[in-house]
This record gives sequence, C-alpha cells and structure tokens, in this order.
Amino acid sequence: MDDLINPHFHDTPAAGEPSNPVLVEVMRGTMVESRHRGAIAVVAPDGSVVRSLGDVTKAIYPRSAIKPVQALPLLETGAAEAFEFGDVEIALSCASHLGEARHVAAVTAMLERAGATPEAFECGAQPPSHSDAATALARAGGAPHALHNNCSGKHAGMIATARHRGEPVDGYTKITHPVQQRILGVFESMTGCDLGQAPRGIDGCSVPVWAMPLGNLALAMARMADPSDQPEIRQRAAARICAAMAAEPFYVHGSNAFATDVIMIAGPDVLVKGGAEGVYAAILPALGLGVALKIDDGGSRAAELAMIHTLDQIGGLSDQHATALTQRLSPVQTNWAGTDVGSLRPAATFLI
Amino acid sequence: MDDLINPHFHDTPAAGEPSNPVLVEVMRGTMVESRHRGAIAVVAPDGSVVRSLGDVTKAIYPRSAIKPVQALPLLETGAAEAFEFGDVEIALSCASHLGEARHVAAVTAMLERAGATPEAFECGAQPPSHSDAATALARAGGAPHALHNNCSGKHAGMIATARHRGEPVDGYTKITHPVQQRILGVFESMTGCDLGQAPRGIDGCSVPVWAMPLGNLALAMARMADPSDQPEIRQRAAARICAAMAAEPFYVHGSNAFATDVIMIAGPDVLVKGGAEGVYAAILPALGLGVALKIDDGGSRAAELAMIHTLDQIGGLSDQHATALTQRLSPVQTNWAGTDVGSLRPAATFLI
Repeated sequence: MDDLINPHFHDTPAAGEPSNPVLVEVMRGTMVESRHRGAIAVVAPDGSVVRSLGDVTKAIYPRSAIKPVQALPLLETGAAEAFEFGDVEIALSCASHLGEARHVAAVTAMLERAGATPEAFECGAQPPSHSDAATALARAGGAPHALHNNCSGKHAGMIATARHRGEPVDGYTKITHPVQQRILGVFESMTGCDLGQAPRGIDGCSVPVWAMPLGNLALAMARMADPSDQPEIRQRAAARICAAMAAEPFYVHGSNAFATDVIMIAGPDVLVKGGAEGVYAAILPALGLGVALKIDDGGSRAAELAMIHTLDQIGGLSDQHATALTQRLSPVQTNWAGTDVGSLRPAATFLI
Repeated sequence: MDDLINPHFHDTPAAGEPSNPVLVEVMRGTMVESRHRGAIAVVAPDGSVVRSLGDVTKAIYPRSAIKPVQALPLLETGAAEAFEFGDVEIALSCASHLGEARHVAAVTAMLERAGATPEAFECGAQPPSHSDAATALARAGGAPHALHNNCSGKHAGMIATARHRGEPVDGYTKITHPVQQRILGVFESMTGCDLGQAPRGIDGCSVPVWAMPLGNLALAMARMADPSDQPEIRQRAAARICAAMAAEPFYVHGSNAFATDVIMIAGPDVLVKGGAEGVYAAILPALGLGVALKIDDGGSRAAELAMIHTLDQIGGLSDQHATALTQRLSPVQTNWAGTDVGSLRPAATFLI
C-alpha cells in the first residue's frame, strides 16, 4: 500500500533484481515455443494491493489502457452533456477501435456534434486494424485516414472538450494545452502519483504519455469501479463512463476483438481496456476492484490471455461467463491451412 | 561443445534456472517501455561455441530460419538442375517472402518448370505480408492465395523434388512423406542431433517442425558457411544455396525487409534468414561461422535488432556495411503522425 501511495519511478531492473515471472506460454506441438513474462496488480480503491504477481511498483506506460480515466474530463467539464453525447460517443472516447465502418461513421458524427471536422485531428492516419475493414477500404479505392486511427474517438472527445471550454483546438495534443493539463490532473488524483517527476513520452496518437507504477494504474481502475471517495462530479463521470462501455462494447474495441467480446459477455461488471505494448486494465464494479497488467515484452496476445485468467482467478467471471469465454481462456492456434498447431496457456506459476 | 554433440532436449526452465538475459530494450520518451530476453549462439563448423549469450542448449523450434538447410535436398537430389532452377528459384526455396507481385510471378513460373500447378500447394492461403502488396491485391479484387504464402517458394521446391524423384505430390507435407524424411535426415546430419526424440510440431505452412538446441541450429548454419567436412554433394549444394541467396536477396525476403536489406548491403558473406517466433539465423562464409538466436517471447523486432548487433560485434560487418545499416542498428520508432517517439536498442548487457 505504501508503494502505491508513495510510488517511486524505477524503470531499469536493478542488478540482481528478480525478473517478472513467466505468465503465458505459447505451445506448438509437444513443446513450449515462446514465453511471456510480466506483472499483474489487483488493487482496491483504498490503495491496498489485493493480489499481485511480479513487480507492481515498477513504472510502465499505461498507453490506451488508461483511456476510461483519460475520458473523465470530457464528462466533468460538461462537454459531453453540452454536445449531447450518448453511450456510443462516450464509449468511443474510451476506445481503441478497429477502424470499422460503424466506428468511422460514429466518430464523424461525434465531431460534427462538437462543431469540428476531421481536419482538426492530430492523431495521424492509421489503416483500419480490422483486416476486413482494411480490405474493404482498399477495394473502394480509399486511403487510411485519421478517422481510422484507433484513437480517433478519444481525440474527438478531446476536441469536443476544448471547443466546449472555448480553448483553441489547434495543438490540443501538446502537453501544455489545457486539454492535456486537465488529463494530467485527473491522472494524478486517480493514480495517487505526482507525475511531475515521472518518465514521459509521446503516445502512438501524439498525446503525452506519463509513466506510473503498474499498481497505481490498477488503483485508478479501482477508483473508476468504486469512486465513492471521489468528489461527486467525478463519481457521476466515472459511473457514466462505465455505463457507456457496458452499453456499447462494440464501440470500445470492435468485431471479434477481446475487449468487446469480454464486455459483451461479462459486462457491466467486467470492463476491460487494452493498450499497446502489452498493457491491459480492468474496472470491476461488482468486486470494487481494479486490475492492471503489463507484459514485459509488449506482447498483446499474452496480455489478453493474462487478463482473462486473472479475471477468472479473482472471481470476476461467473461459471456461465467463463464457459462463454472458453475460446478466450484456452485459445487454439491454427496455421494458414487451418490446422490446429498449438495453443496459448497460463504458465504453471500463474496463480494470482 | 559437448552440449552440441550430445544435445539434450529441455524445453521447460528447471526451478531456479537463470532466465535468459534482456537483449533488446524498447525506448519511449525517457524510459524503457518493453524488454525482450533471449539467447544467441555463434558456432564454428566443428561444433565449438565461439560466443554465446543465454542458454544455447535449450530446445527451440527453428521455424523458417532453417530454410536454407531445408533446401539442401532440392539441390542434392538433382531436382533443381533437372528443372533448370537458377538463383531466383533457389533463393525462393529458402525464402520467407512478402507475397509481392514479383515473388508470386516467380513462384508460379517455378512450379510450371516442375510441371506442377498451384493446386498442389498444401501451405494454405496467406495475405501478402507486404502492406502495399496486400492493398494492391484488394484493389484488384483479388483474394489471398497459397502463392502469397511466405513459404510458397519452399513448397514449390518440395513439390519439384517429389516430382523429380517420381514420388506422389499429394501429401508432400506429411512427416511420413519421402520429402520430409529426406529433410529430417539433412537436419540430423547438419545439426548433429538425433531428432527422433525431439519435441515436434506443425509449422505455419503445415510441414513438420522439429525442436533442436539453439546452438545446434547455429552449427547447421556454420556447416552451410563452411561445409568442408561434409560429403562433396552437400558441399556443392550448400555453396549453391549461399550463392543464390547472395545473388537474389529480394527473393529471400522482400522490399524494405530485414534479410533482403542486410544481404544486399553485406552479402555474400552475411546471409541472414529469419523465422517466426523470434528466431534468426546467419550463415557467415567469410568467418566460417554460423549464428542462431531466439527471442524468448517470439518478438520479431527484437530478433532483427539482436541479429544486426551480433553481426556487428563479431566482426561480421565492415565499417562501411555498418554505416549503410545504421537504420537497422539504431531503429527509430515513429507514431502514426510521423513523430519520433522512441527507439529500439541493445541492452547494456548485450556483449556477445
């Protein structure tokens, strides 16, 4: 608990420091072919670490896993209400979507409501992450656009907030812009970290990214799950974001995508959100807990498997949910000819 | 050396066994965001381990990194000569190509020379790995085919060998087929391993994959570099394969791809070949050495960086080559907006 209240930012393993445990094994035929190490934190809103594996005090970049927290100012400033954003728009403001046609249409409409156009985007063009959507775009002679960027919903929310507050839209991704400074303040109060001294960088979509201990990312998720010690305006904002993610899981991720599948099956009490470089987080309102995990090597396949088994082990999934998520719990690997060649599985040491 | 001559197949780290060292760090802003562990073996043709990092006796699946060795029977049976395969066809038989139009056209022609058609392929359809090629295919209304499969050149070589020997083409990927049994024999003699007891599985393209200690994969590469202790027919075959890879590097990998770039710049004395799940191998004829490395978590980005720094450290690159390969030695990471957000670098402990 002290670690989360007074976090220290160490990013380089000290000499002799134990490495994080192997969490996920990739089987091929009769042998483990690859192994993913990492750390997992399950934290209560008071900062107590309920369960953990590996070093949860080490600083990580939360990447897109923190988007539900990053969306709080959209609600707290009144921007979402002013522009009449509903579940779809709020879910998109927390999304890493796959650039499917419905995502793009909804983000376009969201921008229009905020009186802005896609020219305002500073996130850069990204091809749709969903392969069918990418193929359809190419077939139609189209080119990747910022609207297809997996973060375009978040950026639409940031632009809407700036417009609602009468701030310049230009430069909304800069660290000195009020949009980012408000987010920094929210991150500090929700994670319990003074981020002034934190390592920082630029995210895949051009906004600032601040490092924080893994346990503190889990703490922020716990406070999203149970914001009862937060100011009333934040309590309402957190509850609204959770409700939107639960109501519109397609707009949080996409077709056949992990977060969408898990929320569709296990929501509204299991709200998961992934990020680049092997980060995954979960808001668990029924349990009043937050989860955060990071795969050391950045592997997404391992982050998803570690998350679903963490949820299973801490009682986040009912038996019915676990059965419905069998393919996520025990994913089979097939090759290009469709033959079963192996699987992903939790390592023997994976007992959180 | 004993380990390579009498390899043991352990695939699960024993309790208390030290983990492989961190080889590659992924920087974002001011912090290391992700880390890749692994092992590297540099081996001489007599089986002596010249340099190593991590556990080089642990069994790994060599995946496509072993393709130059896997192509030996195509030469040794006389099939390549009978069908008048030149540098392009022999390079393709060792390739993991990106499915670009030139690759597809050359594989199609290769099959025709062998009197076969693409219907014979058992590798499965794979979308072109080169994004421009995938987009062009979609724009033209085409669909992914087995010809686009990164292994289609290898399969064309296997089919050609079966036809030359009068063996049935149907089932050429089965472990009991003479094509695969010949390859097994070549693997055993080149790696010095009795693979009868080895863990095995099915590769991404449906052919058998046998596990072998990492050091023994490097030994096979050393024997490709200097086959002077091998029978004369193998000496000629190995030299022919090396010459083809050096002459036609585009057909080994593809546009802006690692192996092609390295061989174009540093060949014919640096012949590199990658495989799935973080495996990379190198044949170094001038030094008379073989290299093999495996990233524990299967990360390709780390395998490429570890290979280029291994080559640099063991004298595999001249100063001129190293300068020409600066972007491979010190790769910058840009985000979707084109901003420099970080880099990949060898870990401080990376001194092979």
